[in-house]
Amino acid sequence: MADLLSIILAAGEGTRMQSALPKVLHPVGGLPMVGHVMRTALKSGATDICVVVGPNHEAVQAEVSRHRSGTRFFSQLDRLGTGHAVRQAREAYEAAQGHVVVLYADNPLVSSLTVDAITSRLDAGADIVVVGYRPEDPTNLGRLLTEGGRLLAIREHRDATEEERKIGLANSGIIGFRAETLRGIIDRIDNKNAKGEYYLTDAVELANADGRRVEFIEADAGEVMGVDDRSRLAAAEAQFQSLRRDDFMKAGVTLRDPQSVWFSWDTEIARDVTIFPNVVFGPGVKIASNVEIRAFCDIEDVVIGEGASIGPFARIRGGAEIGPDVHLGNFVEVKKTKIGAGTKAGHLSYLGDAEIGEKTNIGAGTITCNYDGVNKDKTVIGDNVFIGSNASLVAPVTIGDGAYTASGSVITKDVPADALALGRARQENKTGYAPKLREKALAKKAAKGK
Amino acid sequence: MADLLSIILAAGEGTRMQSALPKVLHPVGGLPMVGHVMRTALKSGATDICVVVGPNHEAVQAEVSRHRSGTRFFSQLDRLGTGHAVRQAREAYEAAQGHVVVLYADNPLVSSLTVDAITSRLDAGADIVVVGYRPEDPTNLGRLLTEGGRLLAIREHRDATEEERKIGLANSGIIGFRAETLRGIIDRIDNKNAKGEYYLTDAVELANADGRRVEFIEADAGEVMGVDDRSRLAAAEAQFQSLRRDDFMKAGVTLRDPQSVWFSWDTEIARDVTIFPNVVFGPGVKIASNVEIRAFCDIEDVVIGEGASIGPFARIRGGAEIGPDVHLGNFVEVKKTKIGAGTKAGHLSYLGDAEIGEKTNIGAGTITCNYDGVNKDKTVIGDNVFIGSNASLVAPVTIGDGAYTASGSVITKDVPADALALGRARQENKTGYAPKLREKALAKKAAKGK
Amino acid sequence: MADLLSIILAAGEGTRMQSALPKVLHPVGGLPMVGHVMRTALKSGATDICVVVGPNHEAVQAEVSRHRSGTRFFSQLDRLGTGHAVRQAREAYEAAQGHVVVLYADNPLVSSLTVDAITSRLDAGADIVVVGYRPEDPTNLGRLLTEGGRLLAIREHRDATEEERKIGLANSGIIGFRAETLRGIIDRIDNKNAKGEYYLTDAVELANADGRRVEFIEADAGEVMGVDDRSRLAAAEAQFQSLRRDDFMKAGVTLRDPQSVWFSWDTEIARDVTIFPNVVFGPGVKIASNVEIRAFCDIEDVVIGEGASIGPFARIRGGAEIGPDVHLGNFVEVKKTKIGAGTKAGHLSYLGDAEIGEKTNIGAGTITCNYDGVNKDKTVIGDNVFIGSNASLVAPVTIGDGAYTASGSVITKDVPADALALGRARQENKTGYAPKLREKALAKKAAKGK
Repeated sequence: MADLLSIILAAGEGTRMQSALPKVLHPVGGLPMVGHVMRTALKSGATDICVVVGPNHEAVQAEVSRHRSGTRFFSQLDRLGTGHAVRQAREAYEAAQGHVVVLYADNPLVSSLTVDAITSRLDAGADIVVVGYRPEDPTNLGRLLTEGGRLLAIREHRDATEEERKIGLANSGIIGFRAETLRGIIDRIDNKNAKGEYYLTDAVELANADGRRVEFIEADAGEVMGVDDRSRLAAAEAQFQSLRRDDFMKAGVTLRDPQSVWFSWDTEIARDVTIFPNVVFGPGVKIASNVEIRAFCDIEDVVIGEGASIGPFARIRGGAEIGPDVHLGNFVEVKKTKIGAGTKAGHLSYLGDAEIGEKTNIGAGTITCNYDGVNKDKTVIGDNVFIGSNASLVAPVTIGDGAYTASGSVITKDVPADALALGRARQENKTGYAPKLREKALAKKAAKGK
Repeated sequence: MADLLSIILAAGEGTRMQSALPKVLHPVGGLPMVGHVMRTALKSGATDICVVVGPNHEAVQAEVSRHRSGTRFFSQLDRLGTGHAVRQAREAYEAAQGHVVVLYADNPLVSSLTVDAITSRLDAGADIVVVGYRPEDPTNLGRLLTEGGRLLAIREHRDATEEERKIGLANSGIIGFRAETLRGIIDRIDNKNAKGEYYLTDAVELANADGRRVEFIEADAGEVMGVDDRSRLAAAEAQFQSLRRDDFMKAGVTLRDPQSVWFSWDTEIARDVTIFPNVVFGPGVKIASNVEIRAFCDIEDVVIGEGASIGPFARIRGGAEIGPDVHLGNFVEVKKTKIGAGTKAGHLSYLGDAEIGEKTNIGAGTITCNYDGVNKDKTVIGDNVFIGSNASLVAPVTIGDGAYTASGSVITKDVPADALALGRARQENKTGYAPKLREKALAKKAAKGK
Repeated sequence: MADLLSIILAAGEGTRMQSALPKVLHPVGGLPMVGHVMRTALKSGATDICVVVGPNHEAVQAEVSRHRSGTRFFSQLDRLGTGHAVRQAREAYEAAQGHVVVLYADNPLVSSLTVDAITSRLDAGADIVVVGYRPEDPTNLGRLLTEGGRLLAIREHRDATEEERKIGLANSGIIGFRAETLRGIIDRIDNKNAKGEYYLTDAVELANADGRRVEFIEADAGEVMGVDDRSRLAAAEAQFQSLRRDDFMKAGVTLRDPQSVWFSWDTEIARDVTIFPNVVFGPGVKIASNVEIRAFCDIEDVVIGEGASIGPFARIRGGAEIGPDVHLGNFVEVKKTKIGAGTKAGHLSYLGDAEIGEKTNIGAGTITCNYDGVNKDKTVIGDNVFIGSNASLVAPVTIGDGAYTASGSVITKDVPADALALGRARQENKTGYAPKLREKALAKKAAKGK
């Protein structure tokens, strides 16, 4: 297989996003758009990747480097068109041996299969391969004029004849070159047009004039969708979610209402998991089979074991490990906590920075007091423990296997295995006192009213 | 009215569901699909029902028997087509006096009105009645060749002429017979076809050849939708929800965003109830008029009285009874608890296994400690009680009418009527001590950093 | 600019709403429909507004008066058509100097731009201006017969020719008059029709016969949508939400899933705010830039400062002020509380009737005990305070700057600045006691089983 250089154009200003954040860092499925394109490039086997960025795009570089350290960046200070952008990567394409594919950091859903299709054609002898698609309304878009598998020209809308305007196949901008073809053409692209910009698509005409073989492939309109404002960002998110929902249903996951379940780019879910309406998966979630996730859950950064039952109204985050057959109920938050098999925490609890054993019962209203204003300390709870309701477990603290803490206790010291810990005041009843309290409260109200 | 035997075919493997659960047990609107079809059969006045099941379908039999004890089951060990499946129920149809209708356990939304329409035609002299429908795309489906009200043939797609393929009316599979007609035909159906299976639809051709009267009726495409994978399951769920939402709106229920309210098969809601976005109703809910259900509620197995206000973020379950004008607020869970008129529990509470009187105020953070690790005990709270915030009520415990419990108390003993109960420690202020705690915490952090 | 009298017809019974609440009080975007129309009338510069109401519509009058005190009401006791309704406002239009526009209280989405377009035409010489629209299916609606900008007639469906029925432009009912034109025509409208009602649209024919200039304008179908049952109410709500979502996205707000965010009529959100799925905004919300609202939040009546992070699962209400960089986490309710910059309340808390300073940490499970059964008292917390987890703060109470309260404490007395407050019992461990408790619980269960 020939070497593959991916040039990712990420310098667009994105003024229509109305945002201080660079456009290509806006996330889709929880991952910045440029991250999606990096993943596509890597998955398609790119042997070299370089990214053309605008001024002040340090954050873009940081995101790119998360996916592949050593990615080279080229700076495009003036935004003079796609041809001009590619030229900034001269150092990379001058040295390239095989193919060059140009991708766009604001086309987050492009599939590696499409890149594979480009490189296959290049391998088979094409000099240039352009990716077309069929938008719902191609008005104002450049049309692909084709004959057989050959691409004759890309005709801009304003230059198109009536007949050409009927063509439904539009130019996505995504394009692949044999490296030597790119080198032979890129500097011949001029800016003699209304906007005074250098258009990479002009390469098609130049190559055809040289007698080169220019081909095209078709991609799905949803896949090559570009994002330039928040509505298009929402549309890309919707397209991403739609694909993921279909994937999961095919793989044996029940989504009672697919429209109301949101996945992240890296969500993993096994067979026979049932997901109720209104569940949001942030990044880093991996769920084993036969898990039930009830409505209104917000789940990120966690591994959930087989047969667990989660929610409704549960929130999990921060690197949690939920063992098999664990039950987490409503209004329960679990943060950076490991929970052993068969343990239950059903109601109104906060479990943070804890390690909890197996078959333990965490009473309603339990709170791990893990923060002293500066440090986060650890709560360790053993197997078969019974934590009574409304407990405050003041970390660092360890509660041994089989221990029992009384309801409403504040636990500040370690509890040995099999011990009962109490930390609460004794109850006192003052007979007949309640009416007096009521009178007092009413008198106070009357006094306020004056 | 003639006797009616319903034969429900429930033996399909459902491999495309990718599930360990038998296909017909996957729920729609909270009820397994075969349960929906049982209800339809019962509602249409079936005098006898039998269900053809596959191997290892004990759970299917259990679900069926919940709806009608004494339903007979016939086992289809080899899956050799619908004709073969019906033959397994020979004992039932040999004895049938009136009509026989064949239903499918993976067609969960078939209405009893459609079965009624079949039996009306049979009553009026038809020998066979086939249910057709008009799918969006009939390609690959068997088409109904009709003339007037008569069904001439069911033409498989591969055998159809160009002209016949333009027919939009497809075969749903649902079919009714006069019992004697079925008996005269069922054994003449052969398996001389590509798949070597016995097709029940061949009965149409045989009956017409006998000079029998074969008719058809049309049903809605959504109604006869079959489920064979999780996407179709989600589509059936969506169709079910859409019908229920329309029903409720017609009956005077406001759904601010109908798409985000999910009902169960048995939900009952009176007039002038307002439901905000994002409410999930599990089975067993009955709501009186003028109730307001705010956003993000998960409600099942409860009767809610007139004028109550629920949520946002409320969860009710386990056989609760909520009286008139009760208010349940955010992050409140009510389980198997009866609450009297005008009582309020506004915030962050768990009320389980309790009986609460009228006009009582349950403070924020109240928790009924109903579980001792083995038993669930009861909390009884009277009328006009004031439960101070952050209370732990350790069951079994009774709090008398008009009593008052101080905030933050752990109540382990009964509180007499009109008494004030305290169960909390006295506060102590250590002047100037907070900065020392901070220094200590910072020192600890510094020590860790080393 | 000529004077403008708006006559709002609000007398319809709305029987199809199936509601005890007058139809025009059903809300869209959190505001009663008649309130929307009042706002439109005011925004279009109406110098006089009068509202025609049915019997027993005191609540309608109250809503109207919230938007403009001094609005005159006219009562239509018999519902004899729109012409009859307008006649009830005789006192108003007899005195009118300029233009008169008739609006409908069950057309909540009519824009002031449409009213402006009517009055511009009247200013330019038209005697009557009718608002048409193009519904998806105009069957049964009155069609506008036009020539150039002139409206020749409004043809009822039953009287229309085949050719006229092909006209897609229908009558919305919204109509503007020069005051003198209205006065010259209104009493000549008769009720010689099938229903015996007086139709305001008959004015078109009468005016044309008089040689007056009758014009029309076109409005969007969504904008002039009328509401007469709960499905149409839901459709109007959906249309309202759709417009708001687009507006916010254009202005630089990210909506990850626009379909699952619900705004109120008065929601204000600045640039670079990110909103996760499933957020409900009640009335009275104003959000500064760079705020993040995570999933499952219910937010009303609050001002939120720049850089704050809210949710998931947060509820805010009752006139709150959330300072910049505040974090409110999951299962946190904030009511009528002011929170200073940089303060955090991350988990399971109820903060009601409080004032909280800057950079304060509110531990998990904190509850302000603000209610004594009669009065709501205030909790005041200073800057840099550390409230330990599971605290009960019994109002009225003040906690000074830099103070620290121990986890699980009940705070009933003021805490001086920099003091440490404890209000909890000392822990006691009973070694080996837990197994006894278990035996006791099991024995109890066994006893029950007998």
